[in-house]
Amino acid sequence: VVTPTGPGETVADLGEFALIDAVRLRLGSAASGPALLLGSGDDAAVVATADGRVVATTDVLVEGRHFRTDWSTPADVGARAAGANLADLAAMGAAPTALLVGLGIPPETEVEWVLGLVDGVAAEVSGVGAVVAGGDVVRSDRLVVSVTALGSLEGREPVTRSGARAGDLVAVAGRLGWAAAGLAVLSRGFRSPRALVDAHRRPAPPYAEGPRAAALGATAMVDVSDGLVADLGHVARASGVGIELSSDAFHVPQELTDTARALNADPMHWLLGGGEDHALAATFPADVDLPMAWSVVGRVGRGDDVLVDGAPWSGPRGWTSF
Amino acid sequence: VVTPTGPGETVADLGEFALIDAVRLRLGSAASGPALLLGSGDDAAVVATADGRVVATTDVLVEGRHFRTDWSTPADVGARAAGANLADLAAMGAAPTALLVGLGIPPETEVEWVLGLVDGVAAEVSGVGAVVAGGDVVRSDRLVVSVTALGSLEGREPVTRSGARAGDLVAVAGRLGWAAAGLAVLSRGFRSPRALVDAHRRPAPPYAEGPRAAALGATAMVDVSDGLVADLGHVARASGVGIELSSDAFHVPQELTDTARALNADPMHWLLGGGEDHALAATFPADVDLPMAWSVVGRVGRGDDVLVDGAPWSGPRGWTSF
Repeated sequence: VVTPTGPGETVADLGEFALIDAVRLRLGSAASGPALLLGSGDDAAVVATADGRVVATTDVLVEGRHFRTDWSTPADVGARAAGANLADLAAMGAAPTALLVGLGIPPETEVEWVLGLVDGVAAEVSGVGAVVAGGDVVRSDRLVVSVTALGSLEGREPVTRSGARAGDLVAVAGRLGWAAAGLAVLSRGFRSPRALVDAHRRPAPPYAEGPRAAALGATAMVDVSDGLVADLGHVARASGVGIELSSDAFHVPQELTDTARALNADPMHWLLGGGEDHALAATFPADVDLPMAWSVVGRVGRGDDVLVDGAPWSGPRGWTSF
Repeated sequence: VVTPTGPGETVADLGEFALIDAVRLRLGSAASGPALLLGSGDDAAVVATADGRVVATTDVLVEGRHFRTDWSTPADVGARAAGANLADLAAMGAAPTALLVGLGIPPETEVEWVLGLVDGVAAEVSGVGAVVAGGDVVRSDRLVVSVTALGSLEGREPVTRSGARAGDLVAVAGRLGWAAAGLAVLSRGFRSPRALVDAHRRPAPPYAEGPRAAALGATAMVDVSDGLVADLGHVARASGVGIELSSDAFHVPQELTDTARALNADPMHWLLGGGEDHALAATFPADVDLPMAWSVVGRVGRGDDVLVDGAPWSGPRGWTSF
């Protein structure tokens, strides 16, 4: 039995169990699917794992640190939390099957805010054919969104960070630098260009390109969440190779060029140092026939670091937590 | 390469990546095992799922709400966060395989505190033959511990909350009321009796009894985290049955009787209304041959609620989040 929520009603007004019922109702079809053998409402969920393995990843987002409620709608926050995890699965070459969502919520939060967040999670999850399998709702001083994503390798081997070999091509799929440019715009008190601000609010990771790259024989792959140079640095160290990027190979969109000029910034800093777009970066054997979604931006060589045009990168190295 | 941490060194001193390295080192053997096909250090982990299904559950614990750092050691907090999830798996009849641990940490937290928490997680996980498969570390104002546990049904059907039938026996395994009594002791400023305080700090859920009950044909099962009457209420509603408990059937340990007298409290309130011990409550066909670990405390009948000695329970109904 679900109590309809009124305008301005808070989580404290509604109470834990009615809130969980309202969340479940709002999830609708995003909370059921053939792979979900037992959904939320019990002590745990049961999810089918077609090939006898499950890929699992978790991310925690904290208000004020990973999102601001004055810059992002609740649906944006939900979509970002889901997207960060779905992109991690894609970077292993996995297709997503199910999400678990833990929410820490201040009691004075409006129920509609929470249900808006649920809408964002549901939209992102439904878009990739996955489901919300369960979660937890607790009281907290600050909004905290903790998402765990489960996925399937569909019989393939996982694409790790450690398989890059000298001679491989380095390619990227998805947008680079857009979210960082959007954050720069917002940080200076502007609300446009809209395309950049929207890219910060709600990334559009190229989820399907992960399994596709795996099927094409990608030797290593990573989700670009800290910044391209920083994340390729993880690949370089894990694989024991050097990575040589060519700045000429990057297409710099007009939106980034124009905004960089207006803010007196360098668009390559956003492209190479900005995280949060959740692009995919992968290495492929040199004879691969890459689809349009992938752009070759460099080559794997010797060494143990990432070079840009033959030199160590002197721009920002990307996001770190502390 | 792991930087040895010095006394008083904070998470902010160490930085994100060195902290993750230190956590991984501290996990030691708790971060590897035959079911962990790919462990932490990549975008996601890969876990074997022997029977083509995975059981998954998640819980979020927040400082000040679910634990206090002046009442609990960091190892206690880690063990409780792991244990809450492991008990949820047990309540489905599942054996645990892997945990993912998300940590929100204030930057001024000492590294040793975080590693102490890791010790507690590792101890609880190793004790049940599971592993830590991965996690996330982010900056946060308050300590937040978000755990997701994955488990295996080992070919059995999950034991849900909805399978209880009139005529079944109701039985419990594990301690009831100890954690609530320990919390009452701590709340009044005392530090003893030690056994009760320790029960609050670090529950000892009867993990192995979950799969065992499933194998014995349990028709419904639940983890007692909110309080026995409250949690059996979930079973009653999900199964469409009434549950009749008999207060005489409960063994009241001397520790609870003595402490209740000292605090002018009713020990049955702790037994029937106290959560956090993570006992298991299950219903079984009447002809079951129950092992010693299980005590029969009631019977399934008609109706849709839980009665104690034939009347609605008038004591505390257990924990809710808002």
